[in-house]
Amino acid sequence: MSNKSIDAQLRARASRVIPGGMYGHMAIQRGMPDGYPQFFERADGCRLWDVDGNEYIDFMCSYGPMIAGYGNPRIRAAADSQRDRMDIGDGPSPVLVELAEKFTKQISHAEWAVFAKNGNDATTICNMIARAHTQKRKILVGETAYHGSQPWANRRAKGTPPEEHVHYPTYRFNDVEDVRRVAKDVQSDLAGIVVSAYKHDVPNTQELVDPVFAREVRRICDAESAPLILDDVRGGLRLSLDASWSEFGVQPDLSAWGKAIANGEPLAAVLGSEAYREAASGIFYTGSFWYQGAPFAAAIETLNLLNEVDAPTRMEQLGQQFRDGLYEQAQRHGFGIHQSGPPQMPMIEFEDDPKKTKVATFCANALRHGVYLHPWHNMFLSIAHTEKDIEQALEGTDNAFSKLL
Amino acid sequence: MSNKSIDAQLRARASRVIPGGMYGHMAIQRGMPDGYPQFFERADGCRLWDVDGNEYIDFMCSYGPMIAGYGNPRIRAAADSQRDRMDIGDGPSPVLVELAEKFTKQISHAEWAVFAKNGNDATTICNMIARAHTQKRKILVGETAYHGSQPWANRRAKGTPPEEHVHYPTYRFNDVEDVRRVAKDVQSDLAGIVVSAYKHDVPNTQELVDPVFAREVRRICDAESAPLILDDVRGGLRLSLDASWSEFGVQPDLSAWGKAIANGEPLAAVLGSEAYREAASGIFYTGSFWYQGAPFAAAIETLNLLNEVDAPTRMEQLGQQFRDGLYEQAQRHGFGIHQSGPPQMPMIEFEDDPKKTKVATFCANALRHGVYLHPWHNMFLSIAHTEKDIEQALEGTDNAFSKLL
Repeated sequence: MSNKSIDAQLRARASRVIPGGMYGHMAIQRGMPDGYPQFFERADGCRLWDVDGNEYIDFMCSYGPMIAGYGNPRIRAAADSQRDRMDIGDGPSPVLVELAEKFTKQISHAEWAVFAKNGNDATTICNMIARAHTQKRKILVGETAYHGSQPWANRRAKGTPPEEHVHYPTYRFNDVEDVRRVAKDVQSDLAGIVVSAYKHDVPNTQELVDPVFAREVRRICDAESAPLILDDVRGGLRLSLDASWSEFGVQPDLSAWGKAIANGEPLAAVLGSEAYREAASGIFYTGSFWYQGAPFAAAIETLNLLNEVDAPTRMEQLGQQFRDGLYEQAQRHGFGIHQSGPPQMPMIEFEDDPKKTKVATFCANALRHGVYLHPWHNMFLSIAHTEKDIEQALEGTDNAFSKLL
Repeated sequence: MSNKSIDAQLRARASRVIPGGMYGHMAIQRGMPDGYPQFFERADGCRLWDVDGNEYIDFMCSYGPMIAGYGNPRIRAAADSQRDRMDIGDGPSPVLVELAEKFTKQISHAEWAVFAKNGNDATTICNMIARAHTQKRKILVGETAYHGSQPWANRRAKGTPPEEHVHYPTYRFNDVEDVRRVAKDVQSDLAGIVVSAYKHDVPNTQELVDPVFAREVRRICDAESAPLILDDVRGGLRLSLDASWSEFGVQPDLSAWGKAIANGEPLAAVLGSEAYREAASGIFYTGSFWYQGAPFAAAIETLNLLNEVDAPTRMEQLGQQFRDGLYEQAQRHGFGIHQSGPPQMPMIEFEDDPKKTKVATFCANALRHGVYLHPWHNMFLSIAHTEKDIEQALEGTDNAFSKLL
């Protein structure tokens, strides 16, 4: 990107007033290839325009929140209509109750709901409820799993004393022996086991959950009377219209939701089974904006839309179309690639690419042909993508392969 | 409220799908007098309508976020215009940079900004930056201060093992000797001191900060090379258009903001001085919705508006008008009352009212006359209130006093 670009000018300004130029997962200096824009001007459907006017077919969906299209008119209208009446107030609007009812009907294990603003609020509340219910302390978490950036969940971060992780022993995902061993180690103090829907800890290869592992986690939780806490923040409503382990009959006690549930309006949710209702009502968790009405209205309409089109199946088809196309192109151009995770949350890696330089160049090439991919984070499909969008994106990736040495 | 009321019907529905019927600070079962509605239908300016159509002049302002009027047309237009272009995307919109620039111009100590969704995100990030900078662990916090409901800040909550508070020793606010003693206790491990703008920990009587205390906290922080962390979440932009200890020359190193900064759009901010920029750029904190554009646009216009009318002075005048009126009425009706805190964030207590039954009855009476007060939490004025609204509210409180035995 040229120094004269609007993006470069904004980055220069940002570098003066934002530490490091940008914070968190959207900071492109955290490993994005050269040429990726930091700032965007417009979003519509499955497309984004950066501040210099370049158009992209988007395969990140704002890292998950967009699931029904940027600016989806039905969802925007629902949110605006609530905003016209009341967004915040001294108590919630009726939409809070309507959404809680809708979620408890939609999600098999859920008998109640509470709402927050960050996925990490939801995972934290699950832990608090688990501890209040069990009167125990240890919460098992996946070794490299991501459950948010709050200190308890943020092992890589400087700024957190190691003591803050003392009650969060780790197990290896999909390793039955290992989770059994760790649960045994803490047995009399087990407050809960947090699981990701599947292994999607960046920048590692994605790995679907082994149903045998899922059932073993359920068995341990039952044996120890501790809750199985499912972190469905990233995969929720993309993998399933139920909690994501439902397909092989494993239900959580508590589940954490966020990202896509309101198509980008800021909303997170904790859903729980009946046995945890009392603990959930006996503790205190809140936030200034947690009763905001517009995101509830948006979530109600998002759930309506996703059900109408069987969204997970639809996104899986689109993801598979993209995946098949990429494999065909890679083979034709003579590259070995590996695609992991569910097709609706795809990830692409190149063989013999330990430093991810090939995938970075490939993504940078695709970007120049109007396709926004991510070189080391799982990507996201939406129901706003169409077969035609995928075809057009594949023209871009074909060009990207052809320029890859 | 009758069982046939819409509010009662919604509460019955909520009791089935929300633990305890409602969570957090907006749950009316957490000590609000009988007759207070749980659910609201409409909000406009400084007025709220509950779901049964009752109108109230609002003295809670959604517990702080509303500062320029519900549905303020200029702020709504700014947010909508951003939403029309892009709210979320794969990176932020230019408004993020514009707001960071605006804040660093507005707030004396601020050389940089980062944004989040909860006030508690901001206080937590301050702690992380403090620890990353000092490489130390202990964060001093006020004994009964409220900095959010995350486990580290939430001492009263079940569901948090006491070990999670081991690095958060407490001092008594405004007690120079005590903060000196606690800082000395942890001296070689002092990572920072978190202070509230003033003492507003419910349900205690409010207490303005003693400048001598403020200067001593500054002195200790300087002597120990640890940051002074100002929690301006609740008082920010109501007490001052600068960090709230600026009036007597005490600047923080890090400040946490939330609630009113975007007039109710969900937004929090950490502002920092130059010395903490490096630490702030070296750690990882993020959230799915932290780059959302509409709240940035709303915050920019909120800051414009508040500066145009010198909002803190304006709200102080209105608060003083209300306070003077209440004193006059109390005297005339033969009640001893005590009003604490800054006039723009008032609190009312009755003499000889250890269980707060008098104040509860008074507030319930006022509610029936169209005035929404809080019996044990500080209240909030806004620039949407007018002298005429205050006069009308005082008619309601006069009635409330006259029916108090």
